[in-house]
Amino acid sequence: MIPFLDVEHEGKQTPAPPPRVAKVQAHVGNTFFEFKIDLGQQSVVSEETLDGRHSHIDSDYTRRAELACMADPRVKEQVAALNLPEGATVVVEPWTYGPDGMNDMSQRMTMCWFYMRLSDDPDANYYAYPLDLCVEMSEELKVVNIFHLPSGDHDRIKTEGKPQEFDRRKIHEGSEYYPTLNTEHRTTTKPYHVSQPEGPSFSIEGNKITWEKWTMRVGFNYREGMTLHDVRFDNRSLFYRLSLAEMFVPYGDPRTPYPRKAAFDLGNDGAGLCANNLQLGCDCLGHIKYFDGWLSTRAGTPLKMPNVICCHEIDDGILWKHTNFRTGRAAVTRSRVLVLQTVITASNYEYIFLFYFSQDASLHYEVRATGILSTAPINIPPATTTTSPPAYGTVVAPGVLAPFHQHLFSLRIDPAIDGHANSLLVEESHPLPLNDPTTPNPHGVGYTTTQTYIPHETGLDLDHRVNRVFKIVNEAVRHPTTRTPVGVRLLPCYSQMLLAHPSSLHAKRSEFAAHAVWVTRYDDAEVFPAGRFTMQSAGGEGIASWIEGRRGKGRGAGGGDGDGDGNGNGDGSGDGDGESGVRNRDIVIWHTFGSTHNPRAEDWPVMPVEKMIVGLKPVNFFDRNPALDVAPSTQERNLSVLVEDGDGQGEKGCCEGVESVDM
Amino acid sequence: MIPFLDVEHEGKQTPAPPPRVAKVQAHVGNTFFEFKIDLGQQSVVSEETLDGRHSHIDSDYTRRAELACMADPRVKEQVAALNLPEGATVVVEPWTYGPDGMNDMSQRMTMCWFYMRLSDDPDANYYAYPLDLCVEMSEELKVVNIFHLPSGDHDRIKTEGKPQEFDRRKIHEGSEYYPTLNTEHRTTTKPYHVSQPEGPSFSIEGNKITWEKWTMRVGFNYREGMTLHDVRFDNRSLFYRLSLAEMFVPYGDPRTPYPRKAAFDLGNDGAGLCANNLQLGCDCLGHIKYFDGWLSTRAGTPLKMPNVICCHEIDDGILWKHTNFRTGRAAVTRSRVLVLQTVITASNYEYIFLFYFSQDASLHYEVRATGILSTAPINIPPATTTTSPPAYGTVVAPGVLAPFHQHLFSLRIDPAIDGHANSLLVEESHPLPLNDPTTPNPHGVGYTTTQTYIPHETGLDLDHRVNRVFKIVNEAVRHPTTRTPVGVRLLPCYSQMLLAHPSSLHAKRSEFAAHAVWVTRYDDAEVFPAGRFTMQSAGGEGIASWIEGRRGKGRGAGGGDGDGDGNGNGDGSGDGDGESGVRNRDIVIWHTFGSTHNPRAEDWPVMPVEKMIVGLKPVNFFDRNPALDVAPSTQERNLSVLVEDGDGQGEKGCCEGVESVDM
Repeated sequence: MIPFLDVEHEGKQTPAPPPRVAKVQAHVGNTFFEFKIDLGQQSVVSEETLDGRHSHIDSDYTRRAELACMADPRVKEQVAALNLPEGATVVVEPWTYGPDGMNDMSQRMTMCWFYMRLSDDPDANYYAYPLDLCVEMSEELKVVNIFHLPSGDHDRIKTEGKPQEFDRRKIHEGSEYYPTLNTEHRTTTKPYHVSQPEGPSFSIEGNKITWEKWTMRVGFNYREGMTLHDVRFDNRSLFYRLSLAEMFVPYGDPRTPYPRKAAFDLGNDGAGLCANNLQLGCDCLGHIKYFDGWLSTRAGTPLKMPNVICCHEIDDGILWKHTNFRTGRAAVTRSRVLVLQTVITASNYEYIFLFYFSQDASLHYEVRATGILSTAPINIPPATTTTSPPAYGTVVAPGVLAPFHQHLFSLRIDPAIDGHANSLLVEESHPLPLNDPTTPNPHGVGYTTTQTYIPHETGLDLDHRVNRVFKIVNEAVRHPTTRTPVGVRLLPCYSQMLLAHPSSLHAKRSEFAAHAVWVTRYDDAEVFPAGRFTMQSAGGEGIASWIEGRRGKGRGAGGGDGDGDGNGNGDGSGDGDGESGVRNRDIVIWHTFGSTHNPRAEDWPVMPVEKMIVGLKPVNFFDRNPALDVAPSTQERNLSVLVEDGDGQGEKGCCEGVESVDM
Repeated sequence: MIPFLDVEHEGKQTPAPPPRVAKVQAHVGNTFFEFKIDLGQQSVVSEETLDGRHSHIDSDYTRRAELACMADPRVKEQVAALNLPEGATVVVEPWTYGPDGMNDMSQRMTMCWFYMRLSDDPDANYYAYPLDLCVEMSEELKVVNIFHLPSGDHDRIKTEGKPQEFDRRKIHEGSEYYPTLNTEHRTTTKPYHVSQPEGPSFSIEGNKITWEKWTMRVGFNYREGMTLHDVRFDNRSLFYRLSLAEMFVPYGDPRTPYPRKAAFDLGNDGAGLCANNLQLGCDCLGHIKYFDGWLSTRAGTPLKMPNVICCHEIDDGILWKHTNFRTGRAAVTRSRVLVLQTVITASNYEYIFLFYFSQDASLHYEVRATGILSTAPINIPPATTTTSPPAYGTVVAPGVLAPFHQHLFSLRIDPAIDGHANSLLVEESHPLPLNDPTTPNPHGVGYTTTQTYIPHETGLDLDHRVNRVFKIVNEAVRHPTTRTPVGVRLLPCYSQMLLAHPSSLHAKRSEFAAHAVWVTRYDDAEVFPAGRFTMQSAGGEGIASWIEGRRGKGRGAGGGDGDGDGNGNGDGSGDGDGESGVRNRDIVIWHTFGSTHNPRAEDWPVMPVEKMIVGLKPVNFFDRNPALDVAPSTQERNLSVLVEDGDGQGEKGCCEGVESVDM
């Protein structure tokens, strides 16, 4: 790809494309394979048998699990014992889980969680009525185990193998979200339209986007959903590939069977498979370009996923401004931003994934969590009790517990900062000592920075207290003025890492969730930091294991590992580079971020978005402000409208320049 | 005010307003006073003589400082010795500084930093040519001292009391920002218009804003600029007052005279005084309501500050969404946000201050730093040297150093969560132990939260590693469903605190900058966390000193300080409440945040905005999602436009609902 892209960007000739090879997982008979298929040659390049593994879950299997569960006579008995109100419809929500040592370690199991709705409307919110029943199904969709659920801090009614009967006091109003059931709507919100009479500023050619000096290609696959490729600004290379590479949603209630509540919505469920068909005017506002995705059905026939990615501009306020107080004259530009958005539905939850590109060559990645909290039943406490809140969740409606959980995401950043040989440079800001004669600091105000190159693959943590900044640089390209290596810096999302104990299967399966920033050597096979099989794994397949497996290998004598530029601290290693050296190498950076989500009442019945934002911006990469040439913001172009007092519509105003205020 | 507001909000009668008292600082003869004036009675309520203090700087004094500096014969001699190119215009930029122990501690001094421009155009960027000269002026605007500047890591040319001659190699292109001098503008950015055919959703009555269940009043004063008052949602009280209460910008170069480079842009310079006159279509896009401010001239006559605050809506993408995968039907709403924006110019820098109000009862406060880096001269290194970057700044143009510095802001949050008796509750999330029989955790996945009430005034720090959450609650009001006290939580901006040594005058003057979150008892006089006089102070006047002064006072026997509700940990004190107790009290929360700014080339010649964002959102305050009643997002209302391939304008599309993808 690299030489192909270089030739393409030079623009002098149309290069011959490299071979197109697709990775395909398929069940053939009883065997599960992963093939690599050369699409041009129509031949199988390689074939791997995946014994003891299974594919990502698919909606057909899930549906069959529901039906098999409901059809089982023991389950029917249990449902009857729930003594549900008349008119209730039972809803089964299957979640797959991996082995947890209680079962054969190679089995996929499905946990069927039970809910009900009291309304005939199939869009009634069944999460409002979680039931005291959970059924474990085997790979073959046979009922293996029936669980009753811990239901709070109060004495559990002893039921001898039967679930607790549904407590009629739990019937309530106010938990609907669907507009025909949640019908009281504000009428105060006036329409807001975006119009671009000359059309948007982007141009699209196939999957290639050109916008305000940015160029990139957008991709889509069943597992990661949206991916970005060959991201350049002003024809200088920044990123080879950007994607959400994995996510993990573990629940924190330790009581059986809740440790089996966890989700890998990319690796196990497939973010591409779950992508929403975005609707004009609903999910996206303004002048919208949609990209379709292409997946395959279970039978291997092509499946079009329409409108899975939308592309449009937004105005993001002031980009830069300065007023010369001596003359009173102001220069101001507005920030136009390109948005690429996709939305996935993973059972109860929705996740909105957005890339934002700015005219100043910065980009941001944002996750918005919304949708419906996953719920569990909890007993209504006796009226005479002054009860503490539960230990493992929040009561959001009568009898409805929203358990504590985490959302942990891994943003995979495959940089190509002016080329593929990059390094990870960590900067910190520290006070100067008061009494070091080599750095006099008589007033105690001095501070300076340390710059440390990371020599080998590793996981690192954030520290805002020392202003720790992670920079991806190209040591061979010096900025002509600052005399530092060109690079970009991470604007991280400060998040708690995985709470589950390192010995737990949750931790073993989500190695990426132990540290906020990882650096590895690029490897074609290393795209998913919780490994290829996530929930199916007993550990040892994720990013920490890749690193461990290479540690110390391939080190020769010599092969300098010093920092070589007199800049700041050395890296302290002195060993040869080996297989795990990450200086001046083709490296990948992975940022783990997310949210420890201890639900609040305001997250119910549907959650207003919780935003998690990561940024990447150039540091001494460009000569100067890359948005210096953005045209001045003027009323003539922007056509704002002046609103007078009250809520009238006002007149258009128009003015040039700013008069300084002379006191 | 409190009973007045309560009666007003009840709406049954128009209450008699409380007395209007203005705080006025004035020089009368040679004495500097602070008066409190009852405007209704037209009488002086109190009078305080401020011996040894001076007023905030004003532009007249600053201008006189420039002129006096340039007129001084010794300065003229120095300027001549600079041997500037023909056609150069010298520009003097005065920065006041407080005493630093080298002078009489009660003197205000002005440091005149020297720049030049080579163009006749008065909007040429003179920061591109910092000169080797700095002149210290006394309070009476007499030249007291002449400094030559440290100019880099290279041998300083010995000049025996004269500045270094201006090095012609420093003359360069590319440092202009003003549009008539920086003339190459992109033509790729297509127009983007916002229209609201029914007008905006807000209504304004005087300084009272009503928007989407929010109500508030907006204020403006010379020191803080924009302030917000009596902020309520759905007629429930949340905040009595919100404001930026102080900011501090210290520079980190320890070499004389740079320790005198620091700014309190509120307390010393006056953010209200520096507020920009916002221009329709330039600074603000859409349907804009402007608020004027009123200050006074030096003579005490009224001075209108037009358009200092703008108010408008924006669309912020999806607010909440859920698709029921079983039916394929989606419910989605879009987030409409109210923006209140003000911009200040503080010499070289601009700061944009924004409040955002969302329909889900969350609000955000954002600071955007832009404008021009303050610069210092640095020698061009010999051509044969492979030089390290400088220790205390970034070289952004030939001979132009942009020194390292910090921006530290204090957001003052005066809560009134369902009333004025509030508490600060700190939540953390911790793993359950593996082997505690009282909390079985066989799979190692469990975690729970700790809830700790802060008993006394103090400064606290952030810790994302334990998901430390700061909640302001009303212990007397329990959420009916979650059984926890109603409250709001802070979404902090993780920032490095002050780097200057605690013994430095920088630290003594900016006590708020030592910790990220402070809690104090409300006191009418305690509005400015670096004290009333900031730069004029030798310390002991800020928030930490207020706290220290009250520590241990007024504690009686008894007066329970336990947590009283069986919820989580006790607060460990057991003492009587005293003057510094902050449980169930009228308290104020102060969030310190900002940026350690080690400049980059992309920040030059004018800086694309650096954003710092703080949030406040309800936690178990409302019954459920306060935005549940936002009307569904439809194409019919939103009128998005479909863009076909290429960059055509496309057709309007229209669709309802979402079909699920059946695999």
